[in-house]
Amino acid sequence: MVVEIVVQFENVRADPASMNILCVGTLAIDTVETPVGKRERVLGGSASYFSYAASLFAPVRLVGRIGSDWPPEYTRILSEHGVDWRGVMHDSHAKSYFWHGRYHADYQDRDTLKIEMHGFDRYEPNVPDHFRESDIVFLAAAIPTVQKKVLDQCLSPKLVFADTVDMWIESTREELLDLLLRLDGLFINDAEARQLTGLSSSLQAAHAIRSLGPTWVILKKGEHGCLILGPNTTLALPAVPTVALVDPTGAGDSFAGGMLGYLASRYATLQNSPLHKKELRLAIDPADMAQAMKFGTAVASFTIGGFSLDGLRAINHDQLAARVQDIERLVGCQPRS
Amino acid sequence: MVVEIVVQFENVRADPASMNILCVGTLAIDTVETPVGKRERVLGGSASYFSYAASLFAPVRLVGRIGSDWPPEYTRILSEHGVDWRGVMHDSHAKSYFWHGRYHADYQDRDTLKIEMHGFDRYEPNVPDHFRESDIVFLAAAIPTVQKKVLDQCLSPKLVFADTVDMWIESTREELLDLLLRLDGLFINDAEARQLTGLSSSLQAAHAIRSLGPTWVILKKGEHGCLILGPNTTLALPAVPTVALVDPTGAGDSFAGGMLGYLASRYATLQNSPLHKKELRLAIDPADMAQAMKFGTAVASFTIGGFSLDGLRAINHDQLAARVQDIERLVGCQPRS
Repeated sequence: MVVEIVVQFENVRADPASMNILCVGTLAIDTVETPVGKRERVLGGSASYFSYAASLFAPVRLVGRIGSDWPPEYTRILSEHGVDWRGVMHDSHAKSYFWHGRYHADYQDRDTLKIEMHGFDRYEPNVPDHFRESDIVFLAAAIPTVQKKVLDQCLSPKLVFADTVDMWIESTREELLDLLLRLDGLFINDAEARQLTGLSSSLQAAHAIRSLGPTWVILKKGEHGCLILGPNTTLALPAVPTVALVDPTGAGDSFAGGMLGYLASRYATLQNSPLHKKELRLAIDPADMAQAMKFGTAVASFTIGGFSLDGLRAINHDQLAARVQDIERLVGCQPRS
Repeated sequence: MVVEIVVQFENVRADPASMNILCVGTLAIDTVETPVGKRERVLGGSASYFSYAASLFAPVRLVGRIGSDWPPEYTRILSEHGVDWRGVMHDSHAKSYFWHGRYHADYQDRDTLKIEMHGFDRYEPNVPDHFRESDIVFLAAAIPTVQKKVLDQCLSPKLVFADTVDMWIESTREELLDLLLRLDGLFINDAEARQLTGLSSSLQAAHAIRSLGPTWVILKKGEHGCLILGPNTTLALPAVPTVALVDPTGAGDSFAGGMLGYLASRYATLQNSPLHKKELRLAIDPADMAQAMKFGTAVASFTIGGFSLDGLRAINHDQLAARVQDIERLVGCQPRS
């Protein structure tokens, strides 16, 4: 198999003094049907949503795989937004990961009509040398053994977060439990948290997951917002109520991207501290996590307003700051600035 | 039929300068089974929960009906908390309204095992003369024609709120639509909002209900909190995450009681203004509604921590203020005081 590394890196928009973020996940071509329309073969995948969102705040390094049918335009969308594309493997002998989904009329559920892996299930991510010293690592949902192999390639990251989905809870529970021991935080949706723990209460499930390793558990509840548990900390926000829902795909991944992006920008100064070089994980201040929650919620509210990354691509920093203030007003608080 | 009025009114705890609140609803004897236990023939009913909660803040006048088997102790619990009991009809020839319910293991649903109306379905509330000039009127869920007849007996209330449930949406839709035209606000749970409007989105349903009359629509979402729509205003809060859930009965009614109680205390000064005597409804400041939402959420979080009114009865004002601050921290805001 001949592979080539696509190198494209330009136009970093985020503060270069931020901590950087390594994202490993799926780059996909999606066909999506929602109650308001259909888009064929658009840019999708957990890594696309996460890395675009995170790069609103911080430098993002991407590790993933694309195939022979990958439109160069999709590479450009991410790389021009500051996503370092040098970890993406271009497999010219296979097609890209493809997903075709259809949302129900009430957006409460979706059916997967087709998944074409095209060898993605055998892909073992290689973290390039120049990415191994990344500050924050985000392991998007994947086979836990693959997530662990990625983590093994990283040198003393300051924060490690992962996501997972029902398939891996079902089929690779033991490996997932091993991974949990190595995480600072787990993003998981509420149904999957209940599946993982066998508990019927989302809150109890989140507490139980914390006891399995992650310092922070970020429960994604879709239209009901999020719940975050950490050391002596409980946080929750509703989602931004919107009647302009277009496509919920990527809401959770861009939420994670917004949160970790915010944290990366928040801890920029640590880069120059002696602590930074030590093999220590970072203790996140609950007040920072609370702000991260707002930024993640704000970013996700843009994501769902368009197909593919269209909603995300329409964000500028003023709009994002205004949306965070909207969220503060929504919950009856005085905006901070 | 011989009826007698039980007169008992003592020990007002709330600020007597607050606006007063008239509550008309059900006084019930409940047998409740939840995953953590069972209580037989305890104090229940929408009016009990609402009036106890509201009387944490303001003077509450109660109109309802009890039967021959009503324990005097239950009267004492409410009247000693400042609920003016003089509008309660004691029907010595019939028993009290009785409800027996059982919650599912995950608290997501409940089954009604028995309802004994004992003539409550033929009860037509009479608002005593000395209650007719009440500032705020709360019409707990009942047949809409009965709710309207109560409202007809009230003289220029400043605010009128009502609640409704699936049964009346199903069987008396036209009468309910008539009632909506006369309301400042409707409390309704999200499933019932969708039922009323035929819309699959709770948010769209809430918008649609506003177009049917109520200035404010307060969507009760149980464990997912609440969503409030008003003039140029959208508010939302998650419920307080708690693993100490005991009995969710009355959460919605005490939430309403906490909200309207807070508003009553907030608008105390209006009592002495020339405006007060005019036949005008009150325009609620969105900032006050936001605070009311927090207090309602706080009160409900106590309710569900015990059977019957046990959770509510354990509240003191310091605990309530502390819980509101907890809620502000929960959503990542600086507590106000």
